[in-house]
Amino acid sequence: MSRKGILLVGHGSKLPYNKELVEETASLISRKHPDFIVKCGFMNMNKPSIEDSMNEFKSEAIDVLVVVPLFLAKGIHILKDIPTIMGLPEGEKRGSFRMNGRTIPLLYADPIGSDPLLADLMIKNAEQALFTI
Amino acid sequence: MSRKGILLVGHGSKLPYNKELVEETASLISRKHPDFIVKCGFMNMNKPSIEDSMNEFKSEAIDVLVVVPLFLAKGIHILKDIPTIMGLPEGEKRGSFRMNGRTIPLLYADPIGSDPLLADLMIKNAEQALFTI
Repeated sequence: MSRKGILLVGHGSKLPYNKELVEETASLISRKHPDFIVKCGFMNMNKPSIEDSMNEFKSEAIDVLVVVPLFLAKGIHILKDIPTIMGLPEGEKRGSFRMNGRTIPLLYADPIGSDPLLADLMIKNAEQALFTI
Repeated sequence: MSRKGILLVGHGSKLPYNKELVEETASLISRKHPDFIVKCGFMNMNKPSIEDSMNEFKSEAIDVLVVVPLFLAKGIHILKDIPTIMGLPEGEKRGSFRMNGRTIPLLYADPIGSDPLLADLMIKNAEQALFTI
């Protein structure tokens, strides 16, 4: 079966919560979408690094790798640091990923950005707080 | 009509994207939920500050104020900095907000955290990138 690789990239944090969030989100995606092989990688402070997880994908049976940043909005990590690690020129969203013995497309997805689902998440958290009074 | 105040708190950034995200999310909430009065405040780098927006709420016809952080996960800003600005002891989710002439409940909502909606947003962005090949 042809499968797609997703590398979920987190910011990383000295506290455990960012890593937990990224790993739990990866787990939710894996359960709901068995056609994706999902791994996590972190920009800073946590392991595995983005590089390490990209290397891990080299021996997986995937025919495309998508790097999806679990970041709210574009910033310096999204615009410069992550593309550099991926080997993409700045502003480029597509490249090639050299596997063991073959080359597959490498794609760079957008961060979360403005989305009605995000507004719904904010309302949900506000309502949970309001429920306490 | 009794209305609820929502202060949407963003991290702030030197680049314009975090501020745009927070303001667009506030706008989406306002349109969908006319029972909420929504304002934005930023932890760092952007204006208005959290303090300034809290002051703006003092003359609004609200009977509760909820501070909702537009952050992915708990970190030092969520656990220490924002509660300090709100006048809440660390770990406390409820306090009082002194308006012009009266006092109303002040609530502190959780950041986004792990949520199936977040996994759906990641998949949506991955699918958009995959659509380009």
